[in-house]
Amino acid sequence: MLDFEYYNPTRIIFGRESIAKIHSLLENYGENIMLLYGGGSIKKNGIFDKVMEQLRDKNVIEMGGIEPNPTIETIRRYIQKCREEKVEFILGVGGGSVMDSAKMIGAGAVYDGDVWDFFKNHDQLPEAMLPVATVVTLAGTGSEANQNFVVTNPDTCEKIGKNGGPACFPEFAVCDPQLTFTVNAYQTASGAFDTIAHVFEHYFAEADQYMPVQDGMQEAVIRAVITELPRAIKEPDNYEARANLMWAAQQALFGIADMGKGHGERVEHKMEHILSARYNCAHGAGLAVVVPPFRKHMCRLNPAKYRQFAENVFHIDCTGLSDYEAGMKGITALEDFIKSVGLPASLREIGAESESDVDFLAEELVRQGRVTKGTGIGLKELKEMYASVY
Amino acid sequence: MLDFEYYNPTRIIFGRESIAKIHSLLENYGENIMLLYGGGSIKKNGIFDKVMEQLRDKNVIEMGGIEPNPTIETIRRYIQKCREEKVEFILGVGGGSVMDSAKMIGAGAVYDGDVWDFFKNHDQLPEAMLPVATVVTLAGTGSEANQNFVVTNPDTCEKIGKNGGPACFPEFAVCDPQLTFTVNAYQTASGAFDTIAHVFEHYFAEADQYMPVQDGMQEAVIRAVITELPRAIKEPDNYEARANLMWAAQQALFGIADMGKGHGERVEHKMEHILSARYNCAHGAGLAVVVPPFRKHMCRLNPAKYRQFAENVFHIDCTGLSDYEAGMKGITALEDFIKSVGLPASLREIGAESESDVDFLAEELVRQGRVTKGTGIGLKELKEMYASVY
Repeated sequence: MLDFEYYNPTRIIFGRESIAKIHSLLENYGENIMLLYGGGSIKKNGIFDKVMEQLRDKNVIEMGGIEPNPTIETIRRYIQKCREEKVEFILGVGGGSVMDSAKMIGAGAVYDGDVWDFFKNHDQLPEAMLPVATVVTLAGTGSEANQNFVVTNPDTCEKIGKNGGPACFPEFAVCDPQLTFTVNAYQTASGAFDTIAHVFEHYFAEADQYMPVQDGMQEAVIRAVITELPRAIKEPDNYEARANLMWAAQQALFGIADMGKGHGERVEHKMEHILSARYNCAHGAGLAVVVPPFRKHMCRLNPAKYRQFAENVFHIDCTGLSDYEAGMKGITALEDFIKSVGLPASLREIGAESESDVDFLAEELVRQGRVTKGTGIGLKELKEMYASVY
Repeated sequence: MLDFEYYNPTRIIFGRESIAKIHSLLENYGENIMLLYGGGSIKKNGIFDKVMEQLRDKNVIEMGGIEPNPTIETIRRYIQKCREEKVEFILGVGGGSVMDSAKMIGAGAVYDGDVWDFFKNHDQLPEAMLPVATVVTLAGTGSEANQNFVVTNPDTCEKIGKNGGPACFPEFAVCDPQLTFTVNAYQTASGAFDTIAHVFEHYFAEADQYMPVQDGMQEAVIRAVITELPRAIKEPDNYEARANLMWAAQQALFGIADMGKGHGERVEHKMEHILSARYNCAHGAGLAVVVPPFRKHMCRLNPAKYRQFAENVFHIDCTGLSDYEAGMKGITALEDFIKSVGLPASLREIGAESESDVDFLAEELVRQGRVTKGTGIGLKELKEMYASVY
């Protein structure tokens, strides 16, 4: 087990009608509240009204329009607005993009320089953040209760994720699974697959060490997605299925399940980030395309761990198989799962229109210097992987 | 899944030589530090010197002598000392009894009334606590990173556990598995069995609801004890085994693994508390005696969950068995495990000298009003359970 420090002070308010607790939770914060949301679905499904009722004593600066892959330009504009309106608290109501934005805006608003600095300089962490809280309307990123965020720079085709460090935890996260009843099957599946990909990055790291608590927690999160996603697609109002998906998503990136395991190589997230930067696809959908080819590649290097995955997650009987054969059976089961829940399995399905995209994506990823050395993955391997799912 | 709120702001510093971080962690706290420890083993194994080196800039009020089952009288005396010395911070270096005491003393020192009030009145929570930190030298209670504590009142033969609420979290927990290398086999096993018992109370609760993330996490913690305890007994210096046991113990009561599952019935902990109050036995050893009979009783009421336990924790092939038969196989496997690691399986082994103790224990538990109604357990059942392991 690697040495580690763990800290997560976010208060999680999980359950039915938890929005109703926002009013008292906000008691000790300032008057000027920025209410951040996305495309406006919360105005149609009643969530907006419920939240506004909780903000009845506050001066609300309403700011919708956060896009699915928020751009650095949007973040800068909202930071400007924060300063003009002397915002004291940011409440982000939405999925990962809105919750991430709340943190980036909150960190940028109290920072003297340009918020892009935090992405340009890997080691520069925000020293402070306006207090932020989240209301989850789409489960997947786990962003509601951690210190991470992702931004897109369309000019450079970059999409960069960041662990914002100890200053960037939300004060509280309001998690009512009922709020996700109206999320359609595709978005539900996309969020759920994001959960699996988050776990993968740590699960397959440090494979030479035995960490039964962490491994077991991570397998539990993946298994929960495997059983609960089909239920939630079939019965969108099934509270139990929605609650299990929401809790799985949160635990995938809450920190506990992967402590001591190192950060993993995160190659698949980088392989995807360039997809959503280029095609503006749902993040989880892009992941469904790139995870299988990447994991097939990695299975050759570390087959024993992939056998464990096949056996413990999909309960595949691997008697008589080599570790590699067993591991590949697990990845095949994952591919079958991806198809069964209506997620894409090819670049074409998310918007690629020419095979030349394969070269572009691989070359761009290398150009951005985003692929780490340790995995043995270079331009050639990236091209092969993208080509295999064109 | 039940509605819940989760909050745990304790900073966990886990890994090799993590004691070396105490000096900087204490930078922003006051000068007067109470150093709390138990019987003095830390003076023999070098931990005391290492800690004192970290406290070099502080005014240290050294207070050893916390007993294995700390009494309310000890807590009162140390609170008095805290006030006299104007203690600003309490560092508890030890196992559960020392870490629990640090919290009780910290809460009592800033409370106007008698600290016993918090135990007498179930609903009265400390509103504040002196800042506390912990250095774990014995894994088991998970007390280093949660808000719980247990006190014994020898006059009334009561041993009462308490969730101290949001004011009672340690500031940080220093967890170096190397510090447990010198813990002998019996104490190691006792702590590890405490971990299992903590998980049981929540694992078997809310059995009618499907919570794959929580169940999987809890099974992972139990499995970790099953594989790692024998390794740690065989090789006391095995870092991996010690680290896995320490992390398992912490996660058993960190809150995450049981969120949404309710508090469970905690009967076995109460059945044990009276044992350590009477025989002053190690808590985990007492649990090893009472858990099997209690779980056999409960298996009749809720066999499906016990089958799940047998299959997922001990990987028992239960094909063709009824749920009850399968569940009982799981409990039998647990009994075999208890014996294999040298833990006691009878009241006699922990100090009972007469069969009349069976009546006394059951009657005392009922007299104290500590057995909840929902489990269908009354005087008769308690007597049967204690008698079965006399």
